[in-house]
Amino acid sequence: MTTPHGLALAAAPDDSDLAIARATPLRPILPLAEQRLGLAAEALIPYGHQIAKLSHATLASLGERPPGRLVLVSAMSPTPAGEGKTTTSVGLCDALNRRGVSTAVCLREPSLGPCFGLKGGAAGGGRAQVGPMEAINLHFTGDFHAITAAHNLLAALLDNHLYWGNALAIDPERVVWTRVLDMNDRALRRIEIARGTDPRAVPRETGFEITAASEVMAILCLAEDLDDLERRLGRIVVAWRRDDTPVTAADLEAQGAMAVLLKDALQPNLVQTLEHNPAFVHGGPFGNIAHGCNSLAATRAALALSEVVITEAGFGADLGAEKFIDIKGRQAGLYPDAAVLVATLRALKYHGGASREALGEPDVAALEAGLANLDRHLSILRRFGLEPVVALNVFAGDSAAELARVEAHGRDLGATVVTCRHWAEGGAGAEALAAEVVSRLQGEAPRVVPLYGDDLPLAEKLECIARELYGAVGIDLSPAAREQLARFTAAGHGHLPVCIAKTPFSFSDDPRRLGAPEGHRLTVREARLSAGAGFVVALCGEIMTLPGLPREPAAQGMGLDAWGEISGLC
Amino acid sequence: MTTPHGLALAAAPDDSDLAIARATPLRPILPLAEQRLGLAAEALIPYGHQIAKLSHATLASLGERPPGRLVLVSAMSPTPAGEGKTTTSVGLCDALNRRGVSTAVCLREPSLGPCFGLKGGAAGGGRAQVGPMEAINLHFTGDFHAITAAHNLLAALLDNHLYWGNALAIDPERVVWTRVLDMNDRALRRIEIARGTDPRAVPRETGFEITAASEVMAILCLAEDLDDLERRLGRIVVAWRRDDTPVTAADLEAQGAMAVLLKDALQPNLVQTLEHNPAFVHGGPFGNIAHGCNSLAATRAALALSEVVITEAGFGADLGAEKFIDIKGRQAGLYPDAAVLVATLRALKYHGGASREALGEPDVAALEAGLANLDRHLSILRRFGLEPVVALNVFAGDSAAELARVEAHGRDLGATVVTCRHWAEGGAGAEALAAEVVSRLQGEAPRVVPLYGDDLPLAEKLECIARELYGAVGIDLSPAAREQLARFTAAGHGHLPVCIAKTPFSFSDDPRRLGAPEGHRLTVREARLSAGAGFVVALCGEIMTLPGLPREPAAQGMGLDAWGEISGLC
Repeated sequence: MTTPHGLALAAAPDDSDLAIARATPLRPILPLAEQRLGLAAEALIPYGHQIAKLSHATLASLGERPPGRLVLVSAMSPTPAGEGKTTTSVGLCDALNRRGVSTAVCLREPSLGPCFGLKGGAAGGGRAQVGPMEAINLHFTGDFHAITAAHNLLAALLDNHLYWGNALAIDPERVVWTRVLDMNDRALRRIEIARGTDPRAVPRETGFEITAASEVMAILCLAEDLDDLERRLGRIVVAWRRDDTPVTAADLEAQGAMAVLLKDALQPNLVQTLEHNPAFVHGGPFGNIAHGCNSLAATRAALALSEVVITEAGFGADLGAEKFIDIKGRQAGLYPDAAVLVATLRALKYHGGASREALGEPDVAALEAGLANLDRHLSILRRFGLEPVVALNVFAGDSAAELARVEAHGRDLGATVVTCRHWAEGGAGAEALAAEVVSRLQGEAPRVVPLYGDDLPLAEKLECIARELYGAVGIDLSPAAREQLARFTAAGHGHLPVCIAKTPFSFSDDPRRLGAPEGHRLTVREARLSAGAGFVVALCGEIMTLPGLPREPAAQGMGLDAWGEISGLC
Repeated sequence: MTTPHGLALAAAPDDSDLAIARATPLRPILPLAEQRLGLAAEALIPYGHQIAKLSHATLASLGERPPGRLVLVSAMSPTPAGEGKTTTSVGLCDALNRRGVSTAVCLREPSLGPCFGLKGGAAGGGRAQVGPMEAINLHFTGDFHAITAAHNLLAALLDNHLYWGNALAIDPERVVWTRVLDMNDRALRRIEIARGTDPRAVPRETGFEITAASEVMAILCLAEDLDDLERRLGRIVVAWRRDDTPVTAADLEAQGAMAVLLKDALQPNLVQTLEHNPAFVHGGPFGNIAHGCNSLAATRAALALSEVVITEAGFGADLGAEKFIDIKGRQAGLYPDAAVLVATLRALKYHGGASREALGEPDVAALEAGLANLDRHLSILRRFGLEPVVALNVFAGDSAAELARVEAHGRDLGATVVTCRHWAEGGAGAEALAAEVVSRLQGEAPRVVPLYGDDLPLAEKLECIARELYGAVGIDLSPAAREQLARFTAAGHGHLPVCIAKTPFSFSDDPRRLGAPEGHRLTVREARLSAGAGFVVALCGEIMTLPGLPREPAAQGMGLDAWGEISGLC
């Protein structure tokens, strides 16, 4: 490869994601969009030569088109390293395009802050990546920065309201709106603000969360258009009064200015896979305290412009697929036409009891034991009316016998298991998966329905998920959570779907209970209202909303080389 | 005008800046750059269709070209409303281009946060504006967001270092590095962080400042290139040890990751005036605690690409021009070839004692009294070796007799005073000014030199500015400031230039002492070291580095109309 100065750059020392990404020149995005999506240059807003947003006018013009078919990529319970949902989504997109099926992939935007903690970006991996990788992992098109600004404007307006006399009678001790930044900065988790001697100041304890945890992020990802965005922003509950009535962003007249800040960010970002297929990378809400899917705006645009759209949802099917259907699907009336369930030998062994260090070693006993975790996720997707293709994502060194064992297990359960090698081979490695997905899409469309009705009380919605999907025998609400759910219901939010924030490593609220636990009870510690996003969050166990940096942060190894190229980022 | 949907939009109700901006279609920036600056599309990085950055490769290729001539626009002491330096810079650029002189204007980027406090943007005004106005006033190309992220990464690394055992022996009570955000949020001025029960946590009091006040902003605006940027970032002093030795960003190994975050932001932004002339809008450091000029990168690029470059420096000549020459000029070896001094009847009357409410009324006595302020600024520029053209910026309703009085006063002083009507008429209104500037540039180049040498001790540098430019009889250092200057000198920073942070409304440190006070003493309350930017800040009087919102913030009136157009921003 050559630098912008035309100098030959030494190849990176290994087959790292970065080395592969740098060795693959990307195409200019405007001609690619014209050729592959039929979008003229005026329909797009370029951000550099390899990234563009679809303009609001373009989005409005797409509404009339018949949508393509939607494929949801979910996964079994992961190991801490993740099982490759993003790479599988990218590989499947590339494989479908190889077969001549016009396909786009929709992914979440990575968060900037965590890049400075542990080394590693989030734009796929190996030969199944989207690019430009470094730009996507850094500021990209500024969406996260816009969300940060909109979130913090609301916080500033709230404290300013307290400062100028508190006409809305907000209880300063019951402000629930935090501030956010896109940085791993544990010192900001708990802070006291408005210190000093100004007699008008109202000091109070509050905290920062990471931008991906902001309700504004969830709202941006669920909004149908600018009008819907502004209405949702107005519904955000920022605080409560002593009489238990809520104070909203609309009460602070904040939603218009917030929408102004988010106007550009609502427009989906278009990039490309390393095989030059269209990729929408837009929005990145947490998968625990939010619904963990890319933006609805991106999904709808991709569906209007492609025959098939691949999308992913955070964590395993217990979290991501459930929330995709019960939150995003329910709100948007948009359900998958097919599903892929990603599994790995590593995750099967992890959930069968193997130690993290030994996951690369053959261990049939652990593998056998771990199959129960896969089965539980399969049954979750079936419960929703989806018969998934199991994509067995192959890592270098995986044992052929073990792979065959999983395929045989699939046959026993009436499920198709397909081994995939897209990480090493790109789209060519996922052709069998693509063939299976195409045959599913040619059959009768599944009838996907949410798990519960809007009218079920909030606690019963939680109980329904815990019993029917998690294998629990019931839920235990803390006194605080019980009071919160009652208050949210009294304030008119009992009809909302619920969003369970629990560990992704277990069907229980204990990350050490791997496999497919049964008979446990799910403890709900706290409930939070996301009235603008349109769900009630139930926190089970400790959920970190602002990560810290490790003892030796990845930031310390980063820099620019003599050609201005970034080193140490990914 | 029409919206992106092709709908006719009702004209805005008045001749507001916004109405004029919307009524003037902008040209696509890539063809404009090719036609006017000879830059091919590949030399630029587009951000939408009307904004582009010049790439680092382009910047590197410009180094060989002979530079054009630089015109510095300064002003007399302002009223709180400002006297129109930006509009005069834009109008002069347009007028020079009308005469066939290839001219670009270089301006500072406006800050986002203040837009939500008081209504009004910062991209010129009337028919002397740069566009796209709304994008420039909102996220623009994300430069401020990148600076915020880089600044806060350094803060996170510092507190993370304290958390993991403080191997550098930082005194937690002598951390001088704050956090920043681009928002008017007074509740964050004084905060306590790292609260809670974690035994590793090191709670301490600190605060946020607005992004424009960040030393990272000043560094970005003074850096020659990426290498220089990274070196300067490494020199930032973030804290002191008990033994009075400094701890730097390089000690925390932060400068590489910060440079990664700032890589794109260092590239100058190209936009256009409403008359379609090239405008570089890049960097926006405060004019009090920093040097108040657009980026050196933009100024150098503009000089390489144009015959003449117009640039402005914050506040009056006492602050902006002094810092342009003593800080930016000294560091870069780049001095103005000509100067313009903006004056208004309003400011002359204000400094002659008229009340703020009566500045629009004829008042010859106040005008006469206020001329002393103009004279002082004229003498400051002459002291530096510049003979400025006085641009008398005409407001609607200004009295012809009063304008003539100022012209006559100019003749008495041997100075040329030119009335300018660019706000109402665009470049056509500044043709006389342009003619005068061209004749100055055709004469012998002035020999501009900084006021003092590097070797003068820091306190004597302050005394020199106070005596020779402010009319003071001396300075008084607080005990804290005296200790700080001694400590900075002991740490090897005594050779740096000084940056006086004082009110822009007076030559003293008291904003009520208008006109041209004499015999006063300048009190230096505190000194701060900006070792990366390369200056020592002397704070005189109260300097606000994080504004608050007013009782009725402008944010409350903002929103998007049915076509997605912004209302209430400017």
